[in-house]
Amino acid sequence: MKKIINSADTFVQDTMEGIICAYGDKVKLLHNDFQVLVSNYPAKEGKVGVVTAGGSGHLPVFLGYVGKGLMDGCAVGEVFASPAAAKMADMIRACDRGNGVLCLYGNYNGDRFNFTMACEEVEFDDIKTRAVLVKDDVASSPQENAEKRRGVAGMVYAFKIAGAAADNMMNLEEVAAVTTKALNNIRSMGVALSPCIVPKAGKPTFAIEEDEIEIGMGIHGEAGIEVRKMMTADEIAETLVNTIMKDMSLKDGDEVSVMVNGLGGTPLEEQLIVYRKVHQILSHSGVSIVMPHIGEYATSMEMAGLSVTIFKLDQELKELLQAPAESPFYTNSNK
Amino acid sequence: MKKIINSADTFVQDTMEGIICAYGDKVKLLHNDFQVLVSNYPAKEGKVGVVTAGGSGHLPVFLGYVGKGLMDGCAVGEVFASPAAAKMADMIRACDRGNGVLCLYGNYNGDRFNFTMACEEVEFDDIKTRAVLVKDDVASSPQENAEKRRGVAGMVYAFKIAGAAADNMMNLEEVAAVTTKALNNIRSMGVALSPCIVPKAGKPTFAIEEDEIEIGMGIHGEAGIEVRKMMTADEIAETLVNTIMKDMSLKDGDEVSVMVNGLGGTPLEEQLIVYRKVHQILSHSGVSIVMPHIGEYATSMEMAGLSVTIFKLDQELKELLQAPAESPFYTNSNK
Repeated sequence: MKKIINSADTFVQDTMEGIICAYGDKVKLLHNDFQVLVSNYPAKEGKVGVVTAGGSGHLPVFLGYVGKGLMDGCAVGEVFASPAAAKMADMIRACDRGNGVLCLYGNYNGDRFNFTMACEEVEFDDIKTRAVLVKDDVASSPQENAEKRRGVAGMVYAFKIAGAAADNMMNLEEVAAVTTKALNNIRSMGVALSPCIVPKAGKPTFAIEEDEIEIGMGIHGEAGIEVRKMMTADEIAETLVNTIMKDMSLKDGDEVSVMVNGLGGTPLEEQLIVYRKVHQILSHSGVSIVMPHIGEYATSMEMAGLSVTIFKLDQELKELLQAPAESPFYTNSNK
Repeated sequence: MKKIINSADTFVQDTMEGIICAYGDKVKLLHNDFQVLVSNYPAKEGKVGVVTAGGSGHLPVFLGYVGKGLMDGCAVGEVFASPAAAKMADMIRACDRGNGVLCLYGNYNGDRFNFTMACEEVEFDDIKTRAVLVKDDVASSPQENAEKRRGVAGMVYAFKIAGAAADNMMNLEEVAAVTTKALNNIRSMGVALSPCIVPKAGKPTFAIEEDEIEIGMGIHGEAGIEVRKMMTADEIAETLVNTIMKDMSLKDGDEVSVMVNGLGGTPLEEQLIVYRKVHQILSHSGVSIVMPHIGEYATSMEMAGLSVTIFKLDQELKELLQAPAESPFYTNSNK
């Protein structure tokens, strides 16, 4: 295992310490156990809180989206493991300003279980919560079982919309509703070329041949739809976009935002080459792209591969997407 | 060779097309041969032009720094190869607003040779030019031969300073002087854990064992100082910072900016873990850090590894570093 770490045991804490050393003016630890990060940016009085949580190993997801116009707090567990319910409850309490907290997270059993417990716990403190789950990965389950889909990079768009809605002083029901509307318009799908290594496991998450690509793989190495011989960038873009477009209705004149998300080990050049084809396919269908996001937004440490996310916009969603946002790892000012 | 590309022959053009598809409102091609990108951001009348050039395969270096308060133009060649002098000359002409052009680039033979020819060529058009070379890699040559050092990630700080100086309407001599002052205060050093593959070559740039790390390696796979058994993140940080600090004078009370730059295949978590230790070492010496840069700023496609850059600031350099800047790939608003 060739990783630039001190030990598997301190991987998460060392990462959190790095964030605090670098950006301690913008984000801060809730407690000294390095499990919850909360925003240090000034927030409006009475603003609805928006929080997330999940396993480590996906930076900038999750910790990187704590900021202004984004998340108020984030709890993380070990690599690819959910944080404890008690930590989530602490975070919700810290992020409530009297008007409730939206819990926005990926559709994984551990996170769902723990967030449900945490929300029940804070009911005793009279804190209102709503849960919105991200289920954007079209490859993880067919449309008739869309409720079972996993949350992947489309989560970043959901963070952006929920953060902007809360910043606009929408109430908890409204923030939950507009975030749900956004998620109904978001679809993602990815490919993987290489596995990653969970530090404490010390071995690759899966095996793949030197001339193969896995279509539809999850960000923890969950099996995809099929393993194919290596394809060109254009073929990959076509496969991903065509599968996504079968799952959502897009027509001439529609506006979307597109994210091409590197999983960690894939160069920016390759992400741009895929974006080029996605742009061509959508342009050919009369669909125009607003604020493309190309880069590493949701990773699996050193995994090679990428995902494509399409987010269909209406006027309200477009304005929320374009609203100012800033965290140490994300800004939309240059999109 | 497992890359998400269409063909080795179209790698650079496809990348450029991707940039134009995504950010064609912010940057544009100078000609249709996909070799020169120029800024589309509004620029002040009579502002000194600042341009760069170099081989492809290092995104965001070089193309990613064409923007506002940054570079006015950038010419790129094939992967790890200098663009032609004629292309550089076209770029210089396009970026001159009557008050001359600063050519700011890494100290590599091909780029030096071609930029020198290009500057001679535009003399016939009465365009004033100055060349400032980046030679920040302390591992590439000892201090007594510092003139032979290669340019690596410290180049990004030089782009920022030169761009801000030109934006402040300094004249050509002043922009060259302050950029030179900045570079005299910038030192970098890197480690590599894995090679990368130049698409047209189709094979790794060098070989390294599964338990080894190369200290001081260049961004094209140029040999470093030594190959060692794999080290911890803290040991790597200590090795890099101690070597850099022997080469520059830093004392209690000094202010620096620090860049921990991922080479392409190394996760953000690992970069943050190294930053943590760099921060601790500098804090221990009474040196404080302003605007840390942690992420992928100058890569070698999928190479695993990272570099550390230390940039010693005075009041003028600090203000120029903090001045607004924006490109599709860089913003300093969230640093």
